[in-house]
Amino acid sequence: MSLTIKLTITPHIISLNLHPKQRAKIPAYSLGFRPKAIYHSNALIPILYNNKQPRMSQASVSGSVIKSSLIEPDGGVVVDVIVPESERGSKTLEAESLPKVRLARIDVEWVHVISEGWASPLKGFMRENEYLQSLHFNSLRMENGAVVNMSLPIVLAIDDETKENIGSSKDVGLVGPDGDLLAVLRSIEIYKHNKEERIARTWGTTAPGLPYVEEFITPAGNWLIGGDLEVLKPIKYNDGLDHYRLSPQQLRKEFDRRQADAVFAFQLRNPVHNGHALLMNDTRRRLLEMGYKNPILLLHPLGGFTKADDVPLDVRMEQHSKVLEDGVLDPETTIVAIFPSPMHYAGPTEVQWHAKARVNAGANFYIVGRDPAGMGHPTEKRDLYDPDHGKKVLSMAPGLEKLNILPFRVAAYDTVAKKMAFFDPSRSKDFLFISGTKMRTYARAGENPPDGFMCPSGWEVLVKYYERLQAEEATPAAVSA
Amino acid sequence: MSLTIKLTITPHIISLNLHPKQRAKIPAYSLGFRPKAIYHSNALIPILYNNKQPRMSQASVSGSVIKSSLIEPDGGVVVDVIVPESERGSKTLEAESLPKVRLARIDVEWVHVISEGWASPLKGFMRENEYLQSLHFNSLRMENGAVVNMSLPIVLAIDDETKENIGSSKDVGLVGPDGDLLAVLRSIEIYKHNKEERIARTWGTTAPGLPYVEEFITPAGNWLIGGDLEVLKPIKYNDGLDHYRLSPQQLRKEFDRRQADAVFAFQLRNPVHNGHALLMNDTRRRLLEMGYKNPILLLHPLGGFTKADDVPLDVRMEQHSKVLEDGVLDPETTIVAIFPSPMHYAGPTEVQWHAKARVNAGANFYIVGRDPAGMGHPTEKRDLYDPDHGKKVLSMAPGLEKLNILPFRVAAYDTVAKKMAFFDPSRSKDFLFISGTKMRTYARAGENPPDGFMCPSGWEVLVKYYERLQAEEATPAAVSA
Repeated sequence: MSLTIKLTITPHIISLNLHPKQRAKIPAYSLGFRPKAIYHSNALIPILYNNKQPRMSQASVSGSVIKSSLIEPDGGVVVDVIVPESERGSKTLEAESLPKVRLARIDVEWVHVISEGWASPLKGFMRENEYLQSLHFNSLRMENGAVVNMSLPIVLAIDDETKENIGSSKDVGLVGPDGDLLAVLRSIEIYKHNKEERIARTWGTTAPGLPYVEEFITPAGNWLIGGDLEVLKPIKYNDGLDHYRLSPQQLRKEFDRRQADAVFAFQLRNPVHNGHALLMNDTRRRLLEMGYKNPILLLHPLGGFTKADDVPLDVRMEQHSKVLEDGVLDPETTIVAIFPSPMHYAGPTEVQWHAKARVNAGANFYIVGRDPAGMGHPTEKRDLYDPDHGKKVLSMAPGLEKLNILPFRVAAYDTVAKKMAFFDPSRSKDFLFISGTKMRTYARAGENPPDGFMCPSGWEVLVKYYERLQAEEATPAAVSA
Repeated sequence: MSLTIKLTITPHIISLNLHPKQRAKIPAYSLGFRPKAIYHSNALIPILYNNKQPRMSQASVSGSVIKSSLIEPDGGVVVDVIVPESERGSKTLEAESLPKVRLARIDVEWVHVISEGWASPLKGFMRENEYLQSLHFNSLRMENGAVVNMSLPIVLAIDDETKENIGSSKDVGLVGPDGDLLAVLRSIEIYKHNKEERIARTWGTTAPGLPYVEEFITPAGNWLIGGDLEVLKPIKYNDGLDHYRLSPQQLRKEFDRRQADAVFAFQLRNPVHNGHALLMNDTRRRLLEMGYKNPILLLHPLGGFTKADDVPLDVRMEQHSKVLEDGVLDPETTIVAIFPSPMHYAGPTEVQWHAKARVNAGANFYIVGRDPAGMGHPTEKRDLYDPDHGKKVLSMAPGLEKLNILPFRVAAYDTVAKKMAFFDPSRSKDFLFISGTKMRTYARAGENPPDGFMCPSGWEVLVKYYERLQAEEATPAAVSA
């Protein structure tokens, strides 16, 4: 393939702080002793989009059967409410004259999500009819009678003062936290924000301590404002990761370009360990067995809000790169991109959103594991959700019938084989479950996890992050100020 | 019609304790001065079901176009899991050998509901897949892909000890609170009863003080047991009201017998006042205008659990009889029957259940008013639900597309016209809203509501009930013991 970039593994991986005994057990390839070509998906994107003659049409000419997409987006088309460049000037001028709504950081993330069509067919923040359907049915019925999944309320809260300022205006301008005019919201509808009901129906609890609730709902206004979005220019974060933020349309084009005949999405908000990798590689194997010729993995870390003790996005992206460089995942059949949504930690309700958004991005297979989008109960010593409910709810979710759900067996550390393996209940005592929390505890303590848990270069990224974090925490505030 | 019974209004209505001034304003017909024939629906039922040659077939012979039903029950057939009499002996014998589950009063109400097919296509207490769909989607997807509405979890809770006793048995016997063997539950599935999640997702709050929760969920066991029901004989209450408890199949037959070409259901748990009557009569008028020739009203008071301060069922049934005797509603086009479900007070979630169950009973129109199945927030000074959400949610509910929803304008007391009338916002100061709570306060205080609020004979029933109640409350416990 002409559009690939050859990289050579740098030897710094060898400097990992491992006991010789441990080193011996790490497969040679994961220590980087085998220099190999890395096909790094995301570096390709600028090339792809500057290419006047996209791959797809070439392929068509050569007679290959390529569908422009493997799965229809919800509502038939991927929503795109970003104002074309030619109209930006006039729209901005108009927006300046409108009453303004000041957005919180989380609102900007949702503007991003809506603007690129992740929430298709939603074209803006929910009006009350959409909000109620989302809350009660986790789905929307469209005018033609079709049902699309929509499990999370995607809403914009305003306070009493803002509501009063808006008065009877039909449109408002949306202003980012820095004061930039970002978007216009058209044909608005303002309705009550019953926070208690929203929280109870979304999370199945109203216990204090839910991260999204505490950060963004409790402090929010008592009104919700819905309407159609017009986003004045694409949302960018300028954090060095924007090239990873591929829109659903960009992803669909990339899948086509790669002539994917199956796309399987893997949502994650944690570093990739070898259990995840086992699962993704096993999925690919299963798809090949099913007769697919070119299944492509969409490794799709969530890039929006995550709770304070989760590993930050930049560290995770670095870790994911190492996993690909190390060959734990095959870069040739993997696309790494950032999913711009914030995290709710709403378990079975949220996993539907995670899957639905990937349908819009063109994935027709979705991998779901134990306790997706789950967390510990904020006030009780137990998981907030039954770990099996996520996959059960997802497999029955309205509007997702067209998506192939791939539930998987739990992977755990096999202390005999000294690697991550599918859990075998017949010899359960041989297996060690290493949760995200446990993993973070190892890394924070500078301890190594058992051999074969994660590729060493990926692990090093985490260890260094926690070293930095501890150094920062140890620095007295007066000095850092 | 040959199957009617003529009754003459008894003159006791005149003995109502009214000021002469008030008396003058009550329409003559509602004071019972105009003796008229009352066609009392429910007295007919024994005749109907002993009639070997049902009316319907006679009508067919005479050439009328009569559909055997106006609306298809969910799943295509009305579920009936009552064991035929010929098999009762053997099934009872078998049931006696099974592990037993002791039912609470509320469970018996649900056995009743399921056994007669109100919850069709549900054939027993929910297994986990049904429970999760109900909780998350307010609907069930059937094997053929069709979606039916199912907004309330219909579940049976058991405690740890019962679970242990059941062991690996595939079936269990269900025993009523009095020790009677009532039913068998087949191919059981036991799963966790996460009460907090169930409450939050059903009520949209977990605030203490929800009547159904406090009475039946908080004290219940930590497991749910699902399975297919076989009910050993029809559930009876022997309270003098069983003849009002018509099953969906009985109601469907009665609608056919009456040659109804539209059936509009009115759910209530309160006494009927003239605002309700206005609405029901106005609905009939609208249906006639739409071209229906014989719309029949199903006046369908809820007969299961209600909260302590609601008016009890027997008093309500007496009050409803007076309303019909008084001619406020036309007995010839009205069927009064009891809906055996318990009340959740779960607003927009519950109103779907109320409507869905009536679809199964053959109603193709459903009247929905302000704040259906609502109540005050248990800990805050506000309605628990937005009063408009019930009708909005109902009109969008999955599986209820086939039902004609009739939302109505609010009726209130018009102090100028001195009658219940549709609220006219242009002269809002002329209107008085009399809530159920307010109505009960009047009756409890022995005060009369404004003229024209309720027919006097119906009001008298309420006053007498509250007099009795107060007398009982005033009686020292030692004396009544």
